[in-house]
Amino acid sequence: MSAADPLALAQALIAAPSVTPATGAVFDVLEEMLAARGFVVDRFLAGDAPDGPVENLLAWRGGEGAHFAFAGHLDVVPPGQGWTSAPFAPEIRGDLLYGRGAVDMKGAIAAFVAALDGLDDLPGTISLIITGDEEGPAVHGTVALIERMARHGLKPDMCLVGEPTSVDRLGDTIKIGRRGSVNIWIEVPGTQGHVAYPHLADNPVPKLVRALAAIDALTLDSGTDWFQPSNIEITDLEVGNPATNVIPRRAAARISIRFNDLHRGADLAALIARTVHAHAPNAVVTPRISGEAFLTPPGPLSALVAEAIAAETGIAAELSTSGGTSDARFLAAVCPVVEFGLPNATMHKLDEAVAVADLDRLARIYRGIVRRALAHF
Amino acid sequence: MSAADPLALAQALIAAPSVTPATGAVFDVLEEMLAARGFVVDRFLAGDAPDGPVENLLAWRGGEGAHFAFAGHLDVVPPGQGWTSAPFAPEIRGDLLYGRGAVDMKGAIAAFVAALDGLDDLPGTISLIITGDEEGPAVHGTVALIERMARHGLKPDMCLVGEPTSVDRLGDTIKIGRRGSVNIWIEVPGTQGHVAYPHLADNPVPKLVRALAAIDALTLDSGTDWFQPSNIEITDLEVGNPATNVIPRRAAARISIRFNDLHRGADLAALIARTVHAHAPNAVVTPRISGEAFLTPPGPLSALVAEAIAAETGIAAELSTSGGTSDARFLAAVCPVVEFGLPNATMHKLDEAVAVADLDRLARIYRGIVRRALAHF
Repeated sequence: MSAADPLALAQALIAAPSVTPATGAVFDVLEEMLAARGFVVDRFLAGDAPDGPVENLLAWRGGEGAHFAFAGHLDVVPPGQGWTSAPFAPEIRGDLLYGRGAVDMKGAIAAFVAALDGLDDLPGTISLIITGDEEGPAVHGTVALIERMARHGLKPDMCLVGEPTSVDRLGDTIKIGRRGSVNIWIEVPGTQGHVAYPHLADNPVPKLVRALAAIDALTLDSGTDWFQPSNIEITDLEVGNPATNVIPRRAAARISIRFNDLHRGADLAALIARTVHAHAPNAVVTPRISGEAFLTPPGPLSALVAEAIAAETGIAAELSTSGGTSDARFLAAVCPVVEFGLPNATMHKLDEAVAVADLDRLARIYRGIVRRALAHF
Repeated sequence: MSAADPLALAQALIAAPSVTPATGAVFDVLEEMLAARGFVVDRFLAGDAPDGPVENLLAWRGGEGAHFAFAGHLDVVPPGQGWTSAPFAPEIRGDLLYGRGAVDMKGAIAAFVAALDGLDDLPGTISLIITGDEEGPAVHGTVALIERMARHGLKPDMCLVGEPTSVDRLGDTIKIGRRGSVNIWIEVPGTQGHVAYPHLADNPVPKLVRALAAIDALTLDSGTDWFQPSNIEITDLEVGNPATNVIPRRAAARISIRFNDLHRGADLAALIARTVHAHAPNAVVTPRISGEAFLTPPGPLSALVAEAIAAETGIAAELSTSGGTSDARFLAAVCPVVEFGLPNATMHKLDEAVAVADLDRLARIYRGIVRRALAHF
């Protein structure tokens, strides 16, 4: 089979609107592309309201040998108002293809599908792990896909997530890890009263302030070889008391911690709760862990991805762990995982766009990665 | 002239609605009472929007000798919903007269007017300093009356403010001072950003938290013979950031300080500003001084008021400086001033009421005070 044009594939995917959570038509488009290339395709719904149901797609072809997985998502963030051309009507202007999802990450999925056309000769298994909910709650997406794979007896040896990791030029950045994330709500109850009679009231604000000052003074770590130091931000304060002469009855705050692989979310939540309760014993502390940190230490997978990038572009990619969370945090429990994809300058923005030439280059890089991976193992 | 019944005078004053700022009819009622008793009455408007104009009444009679002033206000706080009888239709049920202003403080003004009828024989000057705006901004009330007195060449030697200072029984409490009050708004600007990239943002919250922790650690004083310690309360916190992954662009707080006569409002505002700026150099600190503290140290005035109370009731009044601010803070700049009036249990509440017997007793106490005062000086 001669290699498909990744541009045409990207246009077809973008033309199927898929604001998160994605369902239906956009999955039909991808299923047709994969079925035509000899893949077994398993589409399924997972989860119940409010975080589900979510549509997911698992596809695989091949047999004995190593197993290489490509992971990604078909859902996109809402386009917002003010696009130059309609966000779900892909349009080429100059060197660029415009449309929501062009870089995050329908363009990467199109490049991977195009890359498959040069790989029919390889031993081993290639799979695609595609969710319709990465941009949303992400509770029933990649997590459910991992369970589904296990039920099919599929276990990847290595995985590439096609998130747009490149910064200035295609190929400049590979992500080998991501920080974890936990948000923690702190609420201190008190007793309302008049400021002229403080002995009849119990002001919750000083307790909260002391707790937050203690949290602010915490040093979680000083970073690692691959991660910057874990960081705490106080993101909100709230009392909501309009009356100058009233001592309020409650005070609340919210903090956000981005942490490296020296920590687990639950341990950090416990640390914060202890710190708060030392100053406000009756405070209510409510953590919500968005994701744990992961790291795939530099090794064979990152090396072969870097080789494939260098072969196509001449660029020596940087290994990075910066930025927010991604679904790679779930896949890291299964096998070594790295992330590599398009330049991310326009992701989530108006007039999201990908260079047409980058789609071709990325398809060739992805093909080089799979070839090296299946040969290596 | 035989003594008027203070109940009838109180009923007449209550029947003229006068939610703050008071104007017109209620002043007509009082002017008529005072003119009938030989007073020169000067009514005038002071101030412009938004804190004015305010109607005020200055009245005096007499000549050579000591000058005793009675100060008070004809405005009342809004009645609110849910009264048993109409708030401006004075009604006697059982031993009580119900109506807005019954204790705060039309009842006291009625008692003072009734007291005048037994004082025609005295030397010296008696004056009334009555504003229509004590419960509101109080910018163009007693302050303007003090200026007006000076223009008439009137200077009291002592002043009694008729606020409802009694707590459990008429006569149990004389106020010889009040704490001052200042509210201070603190706003810390920052630079908004994503929590994953804190180096690109400037979170204002930790600076505010450190500033507030430092403020919370301040000890202003340990009280005086006559005042409890000055007290700082943090009354509000505000960021208003709903997004868990966003570092906010501003953080704000408000504090309230009730302070004794060891401090001036401006000095406290400067102390807070210095404390804030040590932790948040770019913070905007905005004070609003509601009133300075004052103290009339125990002396001839408080002694003669206590004597008059004891003579009528047998109670040994306590000298107090507790509670909020009053217009006595302005009059303290002119002459010794104390506050004494009706039991305050129902002031500002629904079904505000005064015991009819207390009106008679208070008229006799006030008469005893003026008699002692003009004899003393």
